[in-house]
Amino acid sequence: MTGGAGAAPTPPPAGTGNGPAVSRREFDALFARVRAWGRWAPADRGAWNRVTPEHVRRSAALVRSGTAVALGRPWNTAAGPDNPTPALHYMSDLGDIEPPEPATHKDFIGVDYHGKAVTHLDALSHAAYRGQLYDGRPARECVDAGGARFGAVPALGPLVTRGVLLDLPAVAGCGWLEPGRAVHAGDIASAERALGVTIGEGDAVLLRSGSVRRRREAGAWDPGTASAGFHVDAVPLLAERGIALLGADGDNDVRPSPVDGLHSPVHALALVAMGVPLLDNLDLEALSVAAAETGRYAFLLVVTPLDIPGGTGSPVNPVAVL
Amino acid sequence: MTGGAGAAPTPPPAGTGNGPAVSRREFDALFARVRAWGRWAPADRGAWNRVTPEHVRRSAALVRSGTAVALGRPWNTAAGPDNPTPALHYMSDLGDIEPPEPATHKDFIGVDYHGKAVTHLDALSHAAYRGQLYDGRPARECVDAGGARFGAVPALGPLVTRGVLLDLPAVAGCGWLEPGRAVHAGDIASAERALGVTIGEGDAVLLRSGSVRRRREAGAWDPGTASAGFHVDAVPLLAERGIALLGADGDNDVRPSPVDGLHSPVHALALVAMGVPLLDNLDLEALSVAAAETGRYAFLLVVTPLDIPGGTGSPVNPVAVL
Amino acid sequence: MTGGAGAAPTPPPAGTGNGPAVSRREFDALFARVRAWGRWAPADRGAWNRVTPEHVRRSAALVRSGTAVALGRPWNTAAGPDNPTPALHYMSDLGDIEPPEPATHKDFIGVDYHGKAVTHLDALSHAAYRGQLYDGRPARECVDAGGARFGAVPALGPLVTRGVLLDLPAVAGCGWLEPGRAVHAGDIASAERALGVTIGEGDAVLLRSGSVRRRREAGAWDPGTASAGFHVDAVPLLAERGIALLGADGDNDVRPSPVDGLHSPVHALALVAMGVPLLDNLDLEALSVAAAETGRYAFLLVVTPLDIPGGTGSPVNPVAVL
Amino acid sequence: MTGGAGAAPTPPPAGTGNGPAVSRREFDALFARVRAWGRWAPADRGAWNRVTPEHVRRSAALVRSGTAVALGRPWNTAAGPDNPTPALHYMSDLGDIEPPEPATHKDFIGVDYHGKAVTHLDALSHAAYRGQLYDGRPARECVDAGGARFGAVPALGPLVTRGVLLDLPAVAGCGWLEPGRAVHAGDIASAERALGVTIGEGDAVLLRSGSVRRRREAGAWDPGTASAGFHVDAVPLLAERGIALLGADGDNDVRPSPVDGLHSPVHALALVAMGVPLLDNLDLEALSVAAAETGRYAFLLVVTPLDIPGGTGSPVNPVAVL
Repeated sequence: MTGGAGAAPTPPPAGTGNGPAVSRREFDALFARVRAWGRWAPADRGAWNRVTPEHVRRSAALVRSGTAVALGRPWNTAAGPDNPTPALHYMSDLGDIEPPEPATHKDFIGVDYHGKAVTHLDALSHAAYRGQLYDGRPARECVDAGGARFGAVPALGPLVTRGVLLDLPAVAGCGWLEPGRAVHAGDIASAERALGVTIGEGDAVLLRSGSVRRRREAGAWDPGTASAGFHVDAVPLLAERGIALLGADGDNDVRPSPVDGLHSPVHALALVAMGVPLLDNLDLEALSVAAAETGRYAFLLVVTPLDIPGGTGSPVNPVAVL
Repeated sequence: MTGGAGAAPTPPPAGTGNGPAVSRREFDALFARVRAWGRWAPADRGAWNRVTPEHVRRSAALVRSGTAVALGRPWNTAAGPDNPTPALHYMSDLGDIEPPEPATHKDFIGVDYHGKAVTHLDALSHAAYRGQLYDGRPARECVDAGGARFGAVPALGPLVTRGVLLDLPAVAGCGWLEPGRAVHAGDIASAERALGVTIGEGDAVLLRSGSVRRRREAGAWDPGTASAGFHVDAVPLLAERGIALLGADGDNDVRPSPVDGLHSPVHALALVAMGVPLLDNLDLEALSVAAAETGRYAFLLVVTPLDIPGGTGSPVNPVAVL
Repeated sequence: MTGGAGAAPTPPPAGTGNGPAVSRREFDALFARVRAWGRWAPADRGAWNRVTPEHVRRSAALVRSGTAVALGRPWNTAAGPDNPTPALHYMSDLGDIEPPEPATHKDFIGVDYHGKAVTHLDALSHAAYRGQLYDGRPARECVDAGGARFGAVPALGPLVTRGVLLDLPAVAGCGWLEPGRAVHAGDIASAERALGVTIGEGDAVLLRSGSVRRRREAGAWDPGTASAGFHVDAVPLLAERGIALLGADGDNDVRPSPVDGLHSPVHALALVAMGVPLLDNLDLEALSVAAAETGRYAFLLVVTPLDIPGGTGSPVNPVAVL
Repeated sequence: MTGGAGAAPTPPPAGTGNGPAVSRREFDALFARVRAWGRWAPADRGAWNRVTPEHVRRSAALVRSGTAVALGRPWNTAAGPDNPTPALHYMSDLGDIEPPEPATHKDFIGVDYHGKAVTHLDALSHAAYRGQLYDGRPARECVDAGGARFGAVPALGPLVTRGVLLDLPAVAGCGWLEPGRAVHAGDIASAERALGVTIGEGDAVLLRSGSVRRRREAGAWDPGTASAGFHVDAVPLLAERGIALLGADGDNDVRPSPVDGLHSPVHALALVAMGVPLLDNLDLEALSVAAAETGRYAFLLVVTPLDIPGGTGSPVNPVAVL
């Protein structure tokens, strides 16, 4: 809460900047179209089943410069318009608790990591649509106060695959996409051409909107009100390409939502219909620079979620290796 | 606390199994011998400065089978003799807090992660010896209730390097090393020969004692009382080889400590003298199996600590890619 | 977990020490007999509605010596057989965070307070029997991840009433009741006679078994396995007297439970049937001494739960004023 | 953070509304004047030593109507301009963790309670001035990561004494004092006359500024920037009267601070010089109504802090009994 909020962005009028309004019926048709249920075992590893050892080998072979770039944001203990549940960080030993020698310094960390502030992975149990988790599992039977029994983060394990950076501000020659700007299938196709990369089977697609730079230069705002992200009309393209993971420097969904009555339609399509985990709230600024310097928008990506039994996701600090 | 503790191991008599006993004066001479202060910039990245882009490239080139093996233990919310500060995991939304659709399931996690239960990375600020952190920085001036201003985990960033597994039970043909069994320089040299691998500059050395298997089969015990780990006389060899990271399925130190008046002498040598971060409490059981199957004890290792400003380390779930 | 557990008590054979075994059918008859639903407004203040301003005045008039005795146990951050989810206590400022002057010292506290370690009040939402909360409210509709919408602790507010100490070890001339010892209606009647006190309408009844003294002298044990407490056959007497609150230096229930298939039958009777909140895990040692010195077993009792919206109870530190 | 902040109050110009500016030298003279060191045993019970059994008896005798009024604010889990570290509240059992019957609902609470949002008691270890705690104890030696070894909250125990409400808006016939308005000795004397009450030895003095009503009607603001509270020139009067406790519906200090270089001068005077604990962030609205109805501004006050070893204070929910 220290520091004032930035100038609140004015979201574009519905039906313009963030693209065509979508009815619930149209959405449900889209959901049915991209649905990939009953396809993999184990089911709750979802689209990560697409990442075969062969994909792992090929992604490792992408390493050229040997530059490793972290994609996580700092642990944020300060409340703000984009951080209503600030993370905790307390020192539990300053060398005065456990007897020396050596003196030890220890700390406690805590966080309600979903939301807009913490870089995290959404496991498949994070979202349900019409009462169902991915693969048609009834949410009520799968998730309770003890956590998720289907689609929990340990089912995913680590991910080692090819990452592709869709650096839209770089394509457009601007600092960032304004909050509320929707990314459509056409934008993806243009970015592929401009950046010289083609999204393929098993890839992790990372959308840079430049939101981290905007926050740094113009101040924080409430991304629940307005944020750049994917329009649902971009999802069929991603489904056709057979991606394994979708990520962004926001939470992937454009806001305001273009879909009537749905606050996070891309979450519903990716997590529930397609079985594609999401990476939310990345910091892609350093990767953008590194990619521009080398002209390479595909790279080895490694994501190592914590093994939290029953967890609906995990804070992560993914690394891209160019 | 549910579930009884396993049969408490009987630590070997001092000077035998975990022997030779080491005086404080001998330890200080050892400390001076392996000390690597004033060597790198940034200083608080310590021995990770040894991992150059060339190392990264070569480690990526080690990938053969494309098998990715996670090395983290599950988040442990149950108190026990090896877990006096159990981790927290609470559901903060069961689809009944944030309005649908989609329904969202969220959770809070918290942990005082140092200790013997959580797989974590020790940053260089974790330990001080004789009032000094690595590089001779005065601990009192560098660490306070706000965290560490030198040697905090963000200074490390992600690590991508060659990992080497010292699978001592595999060498010895036993299930595990008994708690209290010290690993000496000679054990390391024997393991290198038996496993066909040589520790080199910039490597991450991972010691498997089989403690996770022992815990599973014989029950939990207090590793602060007895655990297999490195004797201080093994450290000069590791220092000569120029390692970047040291890890174990315990906390690296043999206990009881062979050094008079020091509870964690390997921590002091690695973190404070050498600037070598530590990985504590790994689960190396699956990696042991995978390495045995392929006969390959060197592999790509990726460690991605959370970016916690001021943090003295981070829970992690490292991944080995064979 | 530091410090060994005390010698585990041997629970008495079922049907002997902890009294007659009770079938589920007998229990349900008992439940119906003491049920007090549809009686008060607001309903979720339950039996605290019995405490009228007249009761408050009369309880204040009980003060004679002016001795105030705290009844709470210390915040327990150490795991143990009776404390599987230890409380958290971290310093958040040691005078080095917020700028001086004055320097400020601050701390974070956290606790999952139900259980056997923390002195706390159970609000009426804490327990459900056969799917119902007190007053017949369906638990599923009243309690979710956001907390309780009926029977939450703010509905109770503070309690100022007459407290009555049933000091059974004092009556029996022993240090404590052995874990597993059941307290029956006859024990209550005997204690009233011996201590010169009669339980009346609106009273808070506090049972001392001496468990805190036993823990101090003989070490901690798991009270979920064996603890002294009320047998269900004592409850009708308490119901007839019209008590407002029931408390104990355990969690009120004798364990092992005498009722087939019910782990906490007194909880079900008090909270669900009678609308009587519970005080669990008191420390009644100092009060026992003060009552013996003055010969007065009735006194002013004040309980001030925290106002936690949706909370199912609260840590408290009740005070008796003699 | 949900919900906008209220219109930020404009603090009065220094030297006008919040009273005469005070130099550091003048403050130090004031500190020396009200200092009460070396006076009591145990020292860290401070001015609560003034509350003798006789005071307790007389305060209990004040009860007339038998109305009990809680003075705590609700546990606040929402970040806002007055709540940068929101409290935590998570359900740890929704009847689906511990086996029924009965089903049990449990919750975890956590809070960094000092600040402007939580009703809490400051123990004497909370503040240090010029490196010293109350009684001249060196803060560095008394407070570390394990908590306070002098002046911790268990040293206080429960407080049962006479409370006096200084209802300044009632005296002035307004809804609230504007943030930044200082309360001087003359204001206290006027209030005593108008309300028919005289502050005496061992009393708990509670200042109502109406801030809770202002927050409800005009929205939240940052009380660190502007709040109504005591000017330091009111403190000698309170010291002369021999009060035991000082409380307010803010944090007692007027802000901006009238003292050069001191952010919380009343904290320094009360806690450090006088040994008087503080109650911060009370809700005195209901008490104001009850006092006006009965015309009685003195009453029985009971404060029961949690027994947190090493704690610098405690969340509380004090109760006034009229």
